[in-house]
Amino acid sequence: MTEKSKILVVGGTGYIGKFIVKASAEAGHPTFVLVRESTVSHPEKSKLIDSFKSSGVTLLYGDLNDHESLVKAVKEVDVVISTLGGQQIDDQLKLITAIKEAGNIKRFLPSEFGLDVDHHNAVEPAASFLNKKVNIRRTIEAEGIPYTYVCSYAFSGYFLSTFGQQNVTAPPRDKVVILGNGNVNAIFVSEEDVGTYTIKAVDDPRTLNKTLYLRPPSNILSFNQLVSLWEEKIKTTLEKIYIPEDQLLKNIQESSFPTNFILALSHAMLVREVSTTNDPSSGVEGSEIYPEVKYTSVDNYLDAFV
Amino acid sequence: MTEKSKILVVGGTGYIGKFIVKASAEAGHPTFVLVRESTVSHPEKSKLIDSFKSSGVTLLYGDLNDHESLVKAVKEVDVVISTLGGQQIDDQLKLITAIKEAGNIKRFLPSEFGLDVDHHNAVEPAASFLNKKVNIRRTIEAEGIPYTYVCSYAFSGYFLSTFGQQNVTAPPRDKVVILGNGNVNAIFVSEEDVGTYTIKAVDDPRTLNKTLYLRPPSNILSFNQLVSLWEEKIKTTLEKIYIPEDQLLKNIQESSFPTNFILALSHAMLVREVSTTNDPSSGVEGSEIYPEVKYTSVDNYLDAFV
Repeated sequence: MTEKSKILVVGGTGYIGKFIVKASAEAGHPTFVLVRESTVSHPEKSKLIDSFKSSGVTLLYGDLNDHESLVKAVKEVDVVISTLGGQQIDDQLKLITAIKEAGNIKRFLPSEFGLDVDHHNAVEPAASFLNKKVNIRRTIEAEGIPYTYVCSYAFSGYFLSTFGQQNVTAPPRDKVVILGNGNVNAIFVSEEDVGTYTIKAVDDPRTLNKTLYLRPPSNILSFNQLVSLWEEKIKTTLEKIYIPEDQLLKNIQESSFPTNFILALSHAMLVREVSTTNDPSSGVEGSEIYPEVKYTSVDNYLDAFV
Repeated sequence: MTEKSKILVVGGTGYIGKFIVKASAEAGHPTFVLVRESTVSHPEKSKLIDSFKSSGVTLLYGDLNDHESLVKAVKEVDVVISTLGGQQIDDQLKLITAIKEAGNIKRFLPSEFGLDVDHHNAVEPAASFLNKKVNIRRTIEAEGIPYTYVCSYAFSGYFLSTFGQQNVTAPPRDKVVILGNGNVNAIFVSEEDVGTYTIKAVDDPRTLNKTLYLRPPSNILSFNQLVSLWEEKIKTTLEKIYIPEDQLLKNIQESSFPTNFILALSHAMLVREVSTTNDPSSGVEGSEIYPEVKYTSVDNYLDAFV
């Protein structure tokens, strides 16, 4: 066995970042997290920072707006994983500049962890957002930086805890709003599994300059199938309120930012068909190439809420 | 009277843009809207485009990614108003480049129409979003382009129709979720009034290189005052569910994008204090300098929903 790559996570204290940091440390990779000095003293972040330290994670102080700090951090490692949030997609251009200058990075994983942005059918303003990720992809490729793009679709912990309903903290027990006709396939992957698969990919030649699609077969379900599964578990029939696609598109047009953005993202994730077949020339599927990972099925995930 | 400036609206078919286009045409300004060819044939936009045409508005074909088309459009007018949406704030850098090259623009109004971004107290990820608007301000100033920034806070039509509650289409009649303690002042301005005040400002030397704050005195209310006003109108006492600020901050930390973004914006608008006093060196207040405008009060606005 070769030595495990050293991994730097940029955005490691964020929503999905913390799962990737944890998976990296657990897999035995020397793991580094870029943090700003202000983050470490942030009351909401201190507990997380402490858990990083007790897992042997090394904090590197730096800032996306401090080029030298970025280059210095990048030079410490072999792999860079960005988990920067939705408002910081363009900031990754600064990270790419640093990676290019450092010259030592064997793999860069930009912040993706959602839809396959090269094949989205989103309407505005979600389209502009997804196209920022496309722009990052094209920049990475133009700079010749080795990459892997991870498409992990909907986060189970995030989506299944509410079924996308607003103002609730558990799956619905009386009524449920369904966008479109509910027959379109969606894909759900738990945050822990996103971490596990992502870390498996960093040293894998099969994912070099490819997309890693996470489409565990048991977790490809339509919204209607998801509701049926839940209804069986709670032995209740929910009232279903369908919002037809043309009504949803009208609502998007008539809403102000950021509501129009949320609705357009939901439309892209739940109403427009998500491709569930792989083009081998562009990517590989996680549960296929890592059959040893026992992923959490939607069925099991929902049991926690019964 | 001097001739009225020719006005180009970029983003004119968007949520607030259409109100500004309407106000411009009604005030007798030769009014131009930049549109992509695809927008004109967009089923959701065609009715709006028709209404523009029947108001005498001129469509100019162009695209933010087509520099020549931008320069050509800018050269047709005296004033450029950007009403680009939240996902396109950075795209205004392209517009600034075109304005600089054209060299004829007497006033540029970037897409603002919200909080005073130079004095926000937002947490991430809303902070990054508002800072993009700050970056646009600094770029305009560095390029020496004459400007007016319009801060119009919450849109009445958008906010008062739901009180910020999710999944509703009218103000609440049974219960209401209140972020923070509900005692912080918020400011509501109707979309029509945003249009009227904005167009008044474009040829006004008092707003040159200043911020136009829209803070109509009757429309500065705390959330608790707003709820009381509504309760009086519907002669009902609502159940009030308060979400304390520390809980809200925790929810922001624990949510994924875009929910964390929505919550952080709500926090910045409704929980952090919004300044309601003017610094005369940086700005003027709309209802003070245009007392002839009979703005729509929150009180009157709510009557429509009783």
